[in-house]
Amino acid sequence: MYSLDEINKKMAHSLVANLGITITKASATEVEATMPVDERTCQPFGYLHGGASLALAETLAGIGSIQALGENEFAMGAQVTGNHVMPAPIGATLYAKAKILHQGHRTHLWNVNIYNTTGELISTCRVLNSILRRQ
Amino acid sequence: MYSLDEINKKMAHSLVANLGITITKASATEVEATMPVDERTCQPFGYLHGGASLALAETLAGIGSIQALGENEFAMGAQVTGNHVMPAPIGATLYAKAKILHQGHRTHLWNVNIYNTTGELISTCRVLNSILRRQ
Amino acid sequence: MYSLDEINKKMAHSLVANLGITITKASATEVEATMPVDERTCQPFGYLHGGASLALAETLAGIGSIQALGENEFAMGAQVTGNHVMPAPIGATLYAKAKILHQGHRTHLWNVNIYNTTGELISTCRVLNSILRRQ
Amino acid sequence: MYSLDEINKKMAHSLVANLGITITKASATEVEATMPVDERTCQPFGYLHGGASLALAETLAGIGSIQALGENEFAMGAQVTGNHVMPAPIGATLYAKAKILHQGHRTHLWNVNIYNTTGELISTCRVLNSILRRQ
Repeated sequence: MYSLDEINKKMAHSLVANLGITITKASATEVEATMPVDERTCQPFGYLHGGASLALAETLAGIGSIQALGENEFAMGAQVTGNHVMPAPIGATLYAKAKILHQGHRTHLWNVNIYNTTGELISTCRVLNSILRRQ
Repeated sequence: MYSLDEINKKMAHSLVANLGITITKASATEVEATMPVDERTCQPFGYLHGGASLALAETLAGIGSIQALGENEFAMGAQVTGNHVMPAPIGATLYAKAKILHQGHRTHLWNVNIYNTTGELISTCRVLNSILRRQ
Repeated sequence: MYSLDEINKKMAHSLVANLGITITKASATEVEATMPVDERTCQPFGYLHGGASLALAETLAGIGSIQALGENEFAMGAQVTGNHVMPAPIGATLYAKAKILHQGHRTHLWNVNIYNTTGELISTCRVLNSILRRQ
Repeated sequence: MYSLDEINKKMAHSLVANLGITITKASATEVEATMPVDERTCQPFGYLHGGASLALAETLAGIGSIQALGENEFAMGAQVTGNHVMPAPIGATLYAKAKILHQGHRTHLWNVNIYNTTGELISTCRVLNSILRRQ
């Protein structure tokens, strides 16, 4: 298990920091984060790029699976689905909440919901991680 | 229809430029692009972040649908699915190819394949865009 | 709004009856049903066919959207995703619960969870319905 | 590797026969089948039930993976996505074509397209199978 501080430092030189994502909770069953809608995460028409939502979802699921795993195990994103239900304009802050739905020996399945400040659902995603063991 | 030059300029202050994506072809039925695997698109373990693949896929589908639409129409990503089949290490360049599968009045469905330099499949995605009309 | 009795009768000569599905609740926001694992819904190795889960999910979402719609509106399944997390042997009875996640003017998004008798999650699905209006 | 005749016999007391599915080709990389739109596969409004398409897709992917595997290996559907692009009325016959996209040690990924008699795309699906080994 890594601390929040360790996790956010580890993400410094990666897509995660590049999108302005901050992890605010990271247990083995629930992970939470914030992400701003700004030049780093928008499309050219002034709204959140749906791809940023999917990247946020896959980030949370990946961190949660790492928190659940032992030293010689690691997780790789295998399959992701996402439904975008509402736009979010530049200037908004997004709140993402991931919960594990199934923690198997070979796969972990996560649900990730992304909300705006007033609690409206922006996107809802499922992430399936493959669990690998170093031999 | 926008020229490649116009499209890449439009993307300057958005997620698309932020991920280092360059559009190299943009018709109403086929869109192509490149994306580097570097600090902007990787996870902390030295490989492509799967979320960058999904953002790349949604970018290409969005641009293709715009090319297919008239002046008072626009496209919004509604649903995305992606399967990640192979990792790509930092330093790699990715090649993405989007083809339209169905161009309806209300929705466009795109397939987007992402390859590495040697032509191996990295990720394969489906993007469903909702088509809206200003009234 | 149709009564449960009307709904189950309407389904008599369709895939729904063919799979042994019985609708047990049908509001505009929640739909529930049961489905047996038997010769009608299994694969040849003695377990639930995953395709039966997906058909069950799409059935519940379709009925829920119909309950939410007016006389000149109808719903068509546009996109479905499903994760199978546990097998179910022949002889089991499945319990499915659908909840609406987003009721838009043009689309409805449903989550459908399928459980066994002891409440374990068998499959979890998302169904996106297109809403059409007769003119 | 099973012959077509063996495969269709094995399916006799299962969802596959129940939906009227006939396998017409079954290699380890390509599988084909037909399915009628009739009382066994329709919804109550006279058209193909989208769930039948998904069941057809998962059937083909399952058979293809079995053809690719050795004696102590078996395949289980883990994740399925499908986009429905056109309705098919009662009386139609559907033609499904599955091709393997990735044959890994732990997973197989299949694309399955479903067409009507005139070659129009009805549904297009992705099926991810988990490969298990008896020990």
